Amino acid sequence: MATTARSVRDVSLAASESSHDLSAAPAATRDAALVRLAELLVERTADVLEANAGDLADERAASLDAALRDRLTLDDERIAAMAQGVREIAGLPDPVGEVDEERTLASGLEMRKVRVPLGVVAVVYEARPNVTVDCAALCIKSGNAIVLRGSSYAARSNGALAAIVREALADAGLPESAVEMAEGGERSELAELATQDGVVDLVIPRGGEGLKAALREVATVPVMYAASGNCHVYVHEDSDLEMARRIAFNAKVQRPGVCNSAETLLVSAAVSERFLPGILEDLSEAGVELVGDERARAAAGDVLVGEATEADWDTEYLGMKMTVGVVDSLDDAIDHVNRHGSGHSEAIVTSSDEAGDRFTAEVDAAAVYVNASTRFTDGYEFGLGAEIGNSTQKLHARGPIGVRELTTTKYVVRGTGQVRE
Amino acid sequence: MATTARSVRDVSLAASESSHDLSAAPAATRDAALVRLAELLVERTADVLEANAGDLADERAASLDAALRDRLTLDDERIAAMAQGVREIAGLPDPVGEVDEERTLASGLEMRKVRVPLGVVAVVYEARPNVTVDCAALCIKSGNAIVLRGSSYAARSNGALAAIVREALADAGLPESAVEMAEGGERSELAELATQDGVVDLVIPRGGEGLKAALREVATVPVMYAASGNCHVYVHEDSDLEMARRIAFNAKVQRPGVCNSAETLLVSAAVSERFLPGILEDLSEAGVELVGDERARAAAGDVLVGEATEADWDTEYLGMKMTVGVVDSLDDAIDHVNRHGSGHSEAIVTSSDEAGDRFTAEVDAAAVYVNASTRFTDGYEFGLGAEIGNSTQKLHARGPIGVRELTTTKYVVRGTGQVRE
Repeated sequence: MATTARSVRDVSLAASESSHDLSAAPAATRDAALVRLAELLVERTADVLEANAGDLADERAASLDAALRDRLTLDDERIAAMAQGVREIAGLPDPVGEVDEERTLASGLEMRKVRVPLGVVAVVYEARPNVTVDCAALCIKSGNAIVLRGSSYAARSNGALAAIVREALADAGLPESAVEMAEGGERSELAELATQDGVVDLVIPRGGEGLKAALREVATVPVMYAASGNCHVYVHEDSDLEMARRIAFNAKVQRPGVCNSAETLLVSAAVSERFLPGILEDLSEAGVELVGDERARAAAGDVLVGEATEADWDTEYLGMKMTVGVVDSLDDAIDHVNRHGSGHSEAIVTSSDEAGDRFTAEVDAAAVYVNASTRFTDGYEFGLGAEIGNSTQKLHARGPIGVRELTTTKYVVRGTGQVRE
Repeated sequence: MATTARSVRDVSLAASESSHDLSAAPAATRDAALVRLAELLVERTADVLEANAGDLADERAASLDAALRDRLTLDDERIAAMAQGVREIAGLPDPVGEVDEERTLASGLEMRKVRVPLGVVAVVYEARPNVTVDCAALCIKSGNAIVLRGSSYAARSNGALAAIVREALADAGLPESAVEMAEGGERSELAELATQDGVVDLVIPRGGEGLKAALREVATVPVMYAASGNCHVYVHEDSDLEMARRIAFNAKVQRPGVCNSAETLLVSAAVSERFLPGILEDLSEAGVELVGDERARAAAGDVLVGEATEADWDTEYLGMKMTVGVVDSLDDAIDHVNRHGSGHSEAIVTSSDEAGDRFTAEVDAAAVYVNASTRFTDGYEFGLGAEIGNSTQKLHARGPIGVRELTTTKYVVRGTGQVRE
């Protein structure tokens, strides 16, 4: 943690200085740094675990609940998984230098729109040391310098991991300060980081709603908000109800703690009495707490379904709870989703092409599914590789934020003396 | 101006409501509305000119300087030019529904990344009635509803023009409230508009730095800042000096009031004594006020070149003034441009491929030119059609903001019952 004495400003400027070298480095060099990083992570596992043990033994760590403590904890297997993740990022296609458009203009100018790194990306995150390595690797791959602002709970682990990343950069002939740490839990430091206009090009918060709200208030640097997901599965009257049962169950239960899991099940009134008893029994047996509207509760058969409050329809539970509603029409389903959804991932189960087309056209979300679980919204599943988060905003990136989304474009225009008439 | 009694919130909600119909309308319908708009502009020219005369006769208009008054003034020719601009926008390729990516995923899902409208775009602008029509047409073309917040100086003209746009929408069977006016010069209304999260999807300011600073302070809705341009022409030692003279002159003089005109001329020390006297004479004779560093002034021959202050290097004159500097190397030129430029349009004149490649790779700007005037950064010149501005930011859009940049993407994913394992 040699960096703690420096100000956020100094750290950001150092990253900015290095970003030019990183951006100019060929893909082979950036990939070599990543391969070396994967090797070093394995070689230095003992050092990282020692640092991690220090974080876990710290008296402050005693205040963490079991889930947070689990996220902070590293072991051989988790470090091996980090290394494997880095190798996979190294193997992704290089987004830098990709030509998005190329044409000869009326003036005879040769125009190319090429992908270039953003410059300096800052990532603000909670006590999850793996984020240190994942985000550094995604930034190195995309030619960006990175400023990491982790949690002070993970300071020792992050310090050990960042030292390894920097050593890998140096071994590949790249500047160490392309990866900088801005440690310290002060809110004033967050504000300082989020106002480094012209030095930091993008801030990505990976954390809860409190962190995002804090950033919204102070940031002048562009921020890409990783999403919350209030996702729906709608079962249309014209649908394979066995398929609907599998999809609804999977969307809720397969991994309830992530943003692309479903929070609400909507069912067409025409099939609710046939459909609901079975799926609600499945969900209830799996341990899902159920709440619903009047018609859903009436159709629930023997399954206990509580009364849904107004707030339930807008809540991302991130856990084993689901809201169930009955709607009269496709229109009502689309309206409900657009009103309550967070624009993340929405699914319809239907055998009607027309209903599927209307749902995908009219639902306003990053990903809209026909006859599949919402759980597929993910960089790996989409064939884009590792992601730094999922965006529900509409500008720049919508859906998985992968290495390509960490780049911008530049028009490079070559002439033979053209002037404007 | 039937809309003035309604709040910014009401106006935004009305636009949002209509945005769904506009977004779902086929391209042919949106284009028909634009063709009708062009017709109506010509048919109703007398009405528009009468409204415009009212704005010009208003006592407040007396306070406008000649340039602002000119921008506010409409005539037959200017209205015909607006109509022609609208016809050209109608003729652009439709960005909505464009498929950016399409693949079958490992899970068997069919994934398409399709372009969709943003939703509601708000444009805030000064007393230029043509912006009312240009921006409305770009939004209709891209399937977006628009909230126009013009200047109260142009309220009558804007009201007449917006009424024509709304009539054209209605004639094409589209909702009139897809184009809404939020009149009123109060800063509190600007803040209200810029905080319509979930209703307004994007705010675009078309105005001076004061407006942008005001928005930066209050906006929670995403803002796309149209650029200021502190652009440079660098004359490398290995270059065709006659070509350099034409390019530097064109970049400054051809239209000095726009953002892609050059403000600074940098010349390699190796050729400054040969090059500067000629170009400085050209510029001076054209009426350009010149300031420079010590070496530029010494090489200026008989031409009067004042002393450049620190501030000059960072100033967008938007007029007939230019700063001239001598640099020792390509590195120094690149450093200077990256330090002082606003990231808009930068040019090198060189016969060296190596120098051209380094300049285009290392200069961080929306558009980088080799052997051409900076004046080409423009939607029309780039073959993208009309633009709503030029972006110097790195996220979402960099360079001309055309109809494609007014869209976002949506992943549409079709399955046969896939669930995540």
